[in-house]
This record gives sequence, structure tokens and C-alpha cells, in this order.
Amino acid sequence: MNRPIKNSRKLSRDVAIVGAGMSKFGAFPGISSRDLFLDAFQEMRLSVDRGFDPREIEALYIGNFSSDIFEGQGHTAAILADWTGLTPRPATRVEDACASSGVALRQGILAVASGLYDIVLVGGIEKMTDMPTSQVTDALATASDTLYEVPAGFTFPGFYAAMATAYMHAYGASVESFMRVGLKNHENGALNEKAQFGATIRQVMDKKIAGALAKGRPAPQWEDELAFLKDERANPVIAWPMRLFDCSPISDGATALLLVSAEIARNFSEAPLYVVGSGQASDAALHDRDTLTALCSAQLAAREAYQMAGVSARDIKIAEVHDCFTIAEIIATEDLGFFPAGQGYRAAEEGLTSRQGSKPVNTSGGLKSKGHPVGASGAGQVVEVWKQMRGEAGARQVAGTLDLALTHNVGGTGQTSVVHIFERR
Amino acid sequence: MNRPIKNSRKLSRDVAIVGAGMSKFGAFPGISSRDLFLDAFQEMRLSVDRGFDPREIEALYIGNFSSDIFEGQGHTAAILADWTGLTPRPATRVEDACASSGVALRQGILAVASGLYDIVLVGGIEKMTDMPTSQVTDALATASDTLYEVPAGFTFPGFYAAMATAYMHAYGASVESFMRVGLKNHENGALNEKAQFGATIRQVMDKKIAGALAKGRPAPQWEDELAFLKDERANPVIAWPMRLFDCSPISDGATALLLVSAEIARNFSEAPLYVVGSGQASDAALHDRDTLTALCSAQLAAREAYQMAGVSARDIKIAEVHDCFTIAEIIATEDLGFFPAGQGYRAAEEGLTSRQGSKPVNTSGGLKSKGHPVGASGAGQVVEVWKQMRGEAGARQVAGTLDLALTHNVGGTGQTSVVHIFERR
Repeated sequence: MNRPIKNSRKLSRDVAIVGAGMSKFGAFPGISSRDLFLDAFQEMRLSVDRGFDPREIEALYIGNFSSDIFEGQGHTAAILADWTGLTPRPATRVEDACASSGVALRQGILAVASGLYDIVLVGGIEKMTDMPTSQVTDALATASDTLYEVPAGFTFPGFYAAMATAYMHAYGASVESFMRVGLKNHENGALNEKAQFGATIRQVMDKKIAGALAKGRPAPQWEDELAFLKDERANPVIAWPMRLFDCSPISDGATALLLVSAEIARNFSEAPLYVVGSGQASDAALHDRDTLTALCSAQLAAREAYQMAGVSARDIKIAEVHDCFTIAEIIATEDLGFFPAGQGYRAAEEGLTSRQGSKPVNTSGGLKSKGHPVGASGAGQVVEVWKQMRGEAGARQVAGTLDLALTHNVGGTGQTSVVHIFERR
Repeated sequence: MNRPIKNSRKLSRDVAIVGAGMSKFGAFPGISSRDLFLDAFQEMRLSVDRGFDPREIEALYIGNFSSDIFEGQGHTAAILADWTGLTPRPATRVEDACASSGVALRQGILAVASGLYDIVLVGGIEKMTDMPTSQVTDALATASDTLYEVPAGFTFPGFYAAMATAYMHAYGASVESFMRVGLKNHENGALNEKAQFGATIRQVMDKKIAGALAKGRPAPQWEDELAFLKDERANPVIAWPMRLFDCSPISDGATALLLVSAEIARNFSEAPLYVVGSGQASDAALHDRDTLTALCSAQLAAREAYQMAGVSARDIKIAEVHDCFTIAEIIATEDLGFFPAGQGYRAAEEGLTSRQGSKPVNTSGGLKSKGHPVGASGAGQVVEVWKQMRGEAGARQVAGTLDLALTHNVGGTGQTSVVHIFERR
């Protein structure tokens, strides 16, 4: 079914982001998601230009995919409320797979718009590295349709590999097209101190060569990064055509955002981000769709957000999109209207989505390089937009006036998509 | 920490319930939570007096504790959207342990109040009976604080047993006080065709006697139901002083509610229930509290709901409260202000909470007899209130004008509480 979302109304009142923070993303043995969340919470606190007392927070919305499975801990929002000293504030966990904290952000926005709260904390957490990779893969597979897809042998690399092969077939993209996305995102992530992978692909390659030489072995002969990425030993196939450097990693991390009603935003921040658009849509699981080369839910969520904001794709200066796999970024840039269907891969090849391009995408390094603690990723995208729009992104700062930015967060294979648009006034 | 919730404002606009339905609660091998949800959805549809097209639904909020663990299925809300033909509507899962669908209801209310939606579906699901009881107990334990409480050996019967012994010590209640709650709730549940247990304790007792006689064995000699409940063979101790008939069962079930903005409620229903109060609060886990004989989160949630509604405890005609264990109902009736602290057990003994009493509580049979598919229970309480306030509760209908009713839904040991007040105008 593909009924249009009829609703394009305005919220009863406007909402702004006045603080944003994140823990480092990575693999942190022995550190629980609670403690990672404290890191994010503390950075968020310090980002509020005019300061605030955490006791002013009236409610918490926490995005988390499956602390149940990953940490043996459910009821996660109340746990975090206690750990941050925010009890007895109402604490609500939101789960929409890897879109959990993007959707938590939307609920926080609606909660402020409802008139009930003026000040809301939105967070995201995931702690994934305490179990073996095969178990993590199984846990992630619960985000698919487990009646139809898991019994057929699908895992998430497989789903996105299916999309990638369909896309190659439909539009003529090659494995190089995907590799270009990985190269760019590692380039960006190398400039992000919070990223799980702080190295460009060139640096990874040079390190491998140096390592071989140090051990007295013959150094591999790679002409350039592309040759490195095409070498099966350096970059093994996970699910063809997705290789290791096409896949986001297994990560631990936490993120935190402070939302307030727009009329009081300046009491907190000298440069708030106003939420001008929000869209969310659902879809059937991948096995039951008409197309593998686009996410209808993302297209609909984007349309709702653009309509609410009264802007179009061309007005967006930067975007953080859900590149759980490199193919996902290419499809996202089409679903969002940045490039026509079938042209996203060319845009990636031509560098249009690089920091210097016409439409910078995933300046943070994206999920690919920054890391993908799934429940934390959606709010993490907003942390990057916050830094970029306020001119605080350091070495990876995009030039120019970044007055409009977009975040695009996907759950599963697109059974959930949620898009937000932020304005710097 | 025990800071007051400062917020007692009104919502930007009012919300009404115009449809309510539930599946039968029980143990249904081979039936998934999706299919149970279809039952609830269908009954909800038929309960909308003036009919409606499900395509009018603009968003779904689904309460679910842990389909991740119970069914190996996460991303539950999108799955249900697809299964009910509601894609591409935005679908959001809410998890706050056993308060999941009570909190989902609150999010649905805020979403309508925000102005974004006019028509929202709120559901609850849980499918718990596919795994052995010991695994279910472990899964439920993830709703506690698993860093501090599970390693100490606590399970949920143990938590509530600790509350019960503290309560007995503080106020002089006896095991009989708790048994009175079970007797009453089985009395009510026997009149509810949706209840997991369709028998009074007397009927259970008589059946045991008849069974013994039929097998040619000497029939047990129980003077009355209380003697039956005190017999260790008939009613074994689970965690003293909580015996089998003090504990809610492991259940499968689903619930569904249709919410609309108040101004259009009469287009859907001849007798809508207006949501006049909503309150939610969090608390530290049980190991870190000042008292074991009250839930601060429930007291605060009730206060918020009463203030929003502009009513007090004495105005409430009927209530569905979270009797996951019999002690929990007694404490709830005190936390809600129905009876003074330490007097709830006397009220239970004196029959004040029976259908004929001054404050009927759990006319549905409560979680104890109706069943407790944890994520479905909060919205299930609203289904009972819907039937009672509209005079559709059949043999268990409470007499008189039921113009104000309350639901009280608890997550874990009270790390989450959520209270709603409904008005029939």
C-alpha cells in the first residue's frame, strides 16, 4: 500500500534545539550504556550557551533499539533517568530499530508542541560490542520481518546487498560507486574526534603497508585507495557487492539533545536550531515491496518534512543521512530529492556530496566512519548538524552560511524513516 | 530524589477515546502477537459507533515490553502497521516495561494535542507463553535494574514479596488481606469473557474437589475459599507472602484504542471518553528507594493527572489499577488517594473495592484474573473503563453514573507509573 500522508499541518507551537552532545563512538569494553549516556549528557549540558539547571528538564525520550538483547536491560529510559539524576521526570523509551532516536526526537518535538512541556531531553543509546559479532548480527536481524526474512537466510548486509545489486542493475552503478561513498565518509570521519574510525582509507592503506614492511614482509602494491578497496584481502566481501568498507561498524555510543519551545530558545542558546520540519513514515519489510532501489518511507518522510518547513531539497545546505551501508547513502540522496533517481551514484563519484561539493552529506563521517550504535545514531546526526550550523565543526567545517540542514534516519531496511529539517536564524 | 513535577498545564487541545478493543487474554500457542493485534484492532473498529475508515488513522503508537526477547522480533510498531494495512503511516513503539501501553496512550494523546494528528491508533501487545516460565522470569527481570538487583537474586515475585512483607510490618496486614484481593479479582474476571481465568476461586476449589472425587481419591476438606488459598498444596508460595493466587499470570494478548481530537469525537462516537487527565513519572529501581510501602512515581503521576483534570480521588467512580501482584493493588489504592496510607488492606478486606463497594477497582478482573500480557495491559485497562462508562460491561457492569474513571499502569517495580482519567460527558 502506498497512500499519501495527507497531513502537512504545522505544529501547535515551534520547537528548537538548544543543546547537543555525544559520547565518543567506538568499542568500549566494560563501559555500560548508562555511563556512555552520562558523557553525552555532560557534553550537551556544556553546549547550552547560557547554561541551565538539569532539574529544569521536564521529560526524557530515549531512543534505544535493543538494550534488552545487547545488555540484558529493558526499561531503559527509567534507568537513564535515575542514572542522570532526573527522576521523577517521566521517561519514555522509543524503539524503531536504527531509527529509534530519530523517532525519539520527533516524540520530543510533539511533546513540546502539545503544550505539556517546555524543556525535554532526547537521548539515544546502544551498547553493542559486548557480544560476539554473530550474535550482534542475529540481534540486528530482529529489526527485519522475522517471520519471512530471517528464515530465508537474510541478515542486514544481505538486505542492503540486495538493494545494491538491484541498483547496479537498474542504473549501471559499479562497486566503485559504493567505494566512493566509503572513501568520502572516512575522509570526513578522520576529522571527527568522536568517530569510531579516525583514519582515511589512505591512512588505513599506508598503515597496512608500513606494518608489512616493519615485519620484514613484502609490502602490498596498491596503486591507490581504490585498488586497496578492490583487494579482497584488504577489503573482503561481506555480502556482494558490499565489502567490509561498505558496512558501518558495530558500535557503542550515546547522544543527547535538549529541546525547548521556540519562544524560550534564546534564554538557553545564542544560536538555537529551530526545528522547521519533521516527517516519519513506515513501510512493509523489504520482502514485500515494489522496489529495491528506493525507500518509499524515506520519500514520504522527506515530503512531510519539506512541506512542514516550506522548503525544497535544493534549499538544504548539508545533510546527515543514514549510511548503514554505502548503497544506503546513495539511495538516500535520491529519496531526499538531492539528485534524481539513478543519479545518486554519479553524484557520489563526482564528489558532489563531499565537504567541498554542492551538497555535503555526512560531514561527520556518517554511520560508516563515525560509528553506528544503532539507537544513538539518529540523535547523533543532529549533533553534527548542530556543530556545522553553529560553525563549531573545526577541521571538517563546511564553508558558507548553513541556514538549513536535514537529518535522515532509517530503521531496519526502511520500515521506518524519519526526517528532520533545522533552521539557523 | 523526589522533586515535585512542576508541570500541571493543560494540553493545547483535548483528546477523546472513540474506540477500544482487545483480543482474548490467555495462552495461545502458535498465534503471534501480530494476529492477536488483528483481533484487538477488529474489535476496536466495531466499537466505533459511527464507523470509520482505518485509512483515516494518521499514526500508530504501540506499547510493547520485549517482543525482542519473547518473539525474536524487534521494530514491532512497523510490523504491526504492515500487518494491519496501515503503512505508510508513522509507527512508533513505546517501551516502559509493563507500563508500555499506558505510556503509548500518553504519547498518542500528546501527538494529537500537538496539532500534528487528528486520529491516532494506540495499541499494546505481548506474546509471552512461547518460552519456558524460567526464561519468561528472566526476561521480565530485565525490567528491573539489572546491574544491582538481578545479581542479588531478585525476580519480580521477590520484589513484590519484599513490598508485601514491608507493608505487613508497617501496617499489620496479613496474608488474608492479599487473598481478599485475589478473591475479588477472580470474582470479577469470571464475568469477563476476555479474561485468561474465567473462574472464581470458589469454582477453582470446587473443581479440584470434583476432580479428586472423580478419580476416587479422598476429597480435600476446605472450609471455604480462604482455607483453600491458605493450603500450600492448593496455593503454593511463590515468594512469601505472595502465593500462586497472588500473582498475575504469564499471558498473550493485544489491545487497541482509537484516539481523536475532542472536537471531532462526536463524528465517531455517540459516547466518547474524554481524556481529562494524564500523568507520568519515573523513579529509581526498588533497591534505591526510601520506602517499600508506596510507589512515589504513582503518587506523582496521580497528582499530575488529578490536577490536569481538576478532580480528586473521591470523584473517581471506578478504577483499573496495576495488580501484577495482590499487594500492588492495595498499594495502588493508597497511592491514588482512594484510601489513606496503611488503610488499603482494610478497604480490600471490607469489600470497598468490590463491584458493589464504594470504590470499585479492577472490575475487569485486573491483571490477576484477566491476564497480564505486559505491553498490552495498560491499554487493556482503558478497554474496561470504556465498557463500564458506556454501560456495556454486561454481568460485571457497575451500577450508577460512571462519569469519571481512572487507569493506573506501572512499569517494573514502579520505575514508571502512568495514570489517566477519563470523563463521560
